Amino acid sequence: MDEFELIKKYLLPISSIESQFLSNDGAIFRPKIGLDYVVSTDTIVEKIHFKGNESPDLIAKKALRTNLSDLAAMCADPEFYSLSISLPKAKANDFIKIFAKGLKEDQKEYKIKLLGGDLTASIDIITITINIIGTVPSGKCISRSNAKVSDLLYVTGDLGLSNIGLLNINKNDKIFSKAKLKYYLPQPRIDFSSSIRDFVSSMIDISDGFVQDCGHLARSSNLEFVINLKNLPISNIDLLSYEQRLNAALIGGDDYELLFTAPKIYKENINKLAKVHNLRVTNIGYVKSGKNGQVTSSNKPIDINAYKHF
Amino acid sequence: MDEFELIKKYLLPISSIESQFLSNDGAIFRPKIGLDYVVSTDTIVEKIHFKGNESPDLIAKKALRTNLSDLAAMCADPEFYSLSISLPKAKANDFIKIFAKGLKEDQKEYKIKLLGGDLTASIDIITITINIIGTVPSGKCISRSNAKVSDLLYVTGDLGLSNIGLLNINKNDKIFSKAKLKYYLPQPRIDFSSSIRDFVSSMIDISDGFVQDCGHLARSSNLEFVINLKNLPISNIDLLSYEQRLNAALIGGDDYELLFTAPKIYKENINKLAKVHNLRVTNIGYVKSGKNGQVTSSNKPIDINAYKHF
Repeated sequence: MDEFELIKKYLLPISSIESQFLSNDGAIFRPKIGLDYVVSTDTIVEKIHFKGNESPDLIAKKALRTNLSDLAAMCADPEFYSLSISLPKAKANDFIKIFAKGLKEDQKEYKIKLLGGDLTASIDIITITINIIGTVPSGKCISRSNAKVSDLLYVTGDLGLSNIGLLNINKNDKIFSKAKLKYYLPQPRIDFSSSIRDFVSSMIDISDGFVQDCGHLARSSNLEFVINLKNLPISNIDLLSYEQRLNAALIGGDDYELLFTAPKIYKENINKLAKVHNLRVTNIGYVKSGKNGQVTSSNKPIDINAYKHF
Repeated sequence: MDEFELIKKYLLPISSIESQFLSNDGAIFRPKIGLDYVVSTDTIVEKIHFKGNESPDLIAKKALRTNLSDLAAMCADPEFYSLSISLPKAKANDFIKIFAKGLKEDQKEYKIKLLGGDLTASIDIITITINIIGTVPSGKCISRSNAKVSDLLYVTGDLGLSNIGLLNINKNDKIFSKAKLKYYLPQPRIDFSSSIRDFVSSMIDISDGFVQDCGHLARSSNLEFVINLKNLPISNIDLLSYEQRLNAALIGGDDYELLFTAPKIYKENINKLAKVHNLRVTNIGYVKSGKNGQVTSSNKPIDINAYKHF
């Protein structure tokens, strides 16, 4: 099948009214009044961000979910996405068929519509770019840069689990199945994020490792973030040492959990909403004036290099 | 330089308020009331869509302009774009520096703002995806599918010039410089397109060759498009035979000219606007009921295969 036939067979059935059923050069939508529009883009490259031997529906979901996580970080509700795939011609038929199945399932899961995209040949590597559009009530978008002194610092879920999954991807031991699933299928915290919009002062999603992304958040507000390492929600896989699990939590990537600050007065609201969404949300520290932009624990900066060679 | 340093040095200076100066996970914009939003995406891959030895500023401009041409095909005015680049680390510094210079120049030329994007490593090939957002007054978007019987068919510019440029890319003869420039730097017909919004019934941009894209347009309205081949605006490079020039016009790609239908009563309006924009616009045929979705000349379908092996 050529490009047009593949699009007609696999992507047309999952397209939207706004995409004009892929019949035009572009999609069209009428914005809703009272909303701001949030746009984010992420690319994943075979051999760099994924191995290439994963089932294409998992690749589709991971591509979509890393983008959804960016919207979650800004308290935006997902609306639309555009998709570009470049892949070798010989792989196209089998790949697109299963890839589209994954998209369809996650479109339903996250109530998001396909706007269109581009399907092109490549020499040998698969590259996937998703551009995502979400909405927030006007003026309600959360940024990385509005933390205040004495705000509490929270994180969702478990940290490091995805990295443990990646490091043990070829082991069949059942103890790693949850971790491997987290690596293949991140859980963007869309609904929870939307629910805490009125309580959060700054937020980021953790994709490059806790220490690195916490550093981004602290520097964006030019404040010190104090971490109580004992409270860090690390995985409980008892086959691994505490140091291995802590290390994965601090510098492992692919968590796609939310890291956010909120004024103390909202502590109860946040705990209640965590329960409503059946989500572990842990207070791991607080915001302090002082060593601006630093992430500290026990009065010392957490040094990413101390963990890198572990 | 790592990813963050490259972004800070070369992309931050050309970013927009809406991009939040690349400080967040996404960009944010407040839609203007009374407008519909048009979204399109195009990917270009090294060795497939470009050779890789072009100057990076030309690659940047071509990536942007192919997307701008998609907006032009829908009479949309460009507003924003997102950019994803994946490229080998060793090339990144030199490439991004000149690439960003090209973006800056075309941002000014087309009054378009950078919303953000993603910069990632690849193994050996450069892949660039641009997602573009434009606007049209609500309800005024032009599609491929609204041509009516007896509408006239028009095309902008010269056809085949870009293909002649590509075929003669290594020749130093000055006679090919205009053609090579057209190949490297398409001229999306943004301003003219916007000006004819009230007169056009259907439109497409010619990117895959005249016969193929004219076929798309005819099939979208399920009508016959009758072409007077003698009127086709082919290049006048007299080093080439008429057949070579006609062949390039019919099946050569990368024209990025507009092909559109308009009711006869607007002929004068269109001719006047062509003059205002100093643009060659040629009436090359008309729309007929009958052989639905076919493109004919002298009562026979124009057969793409008849020209393919020329």
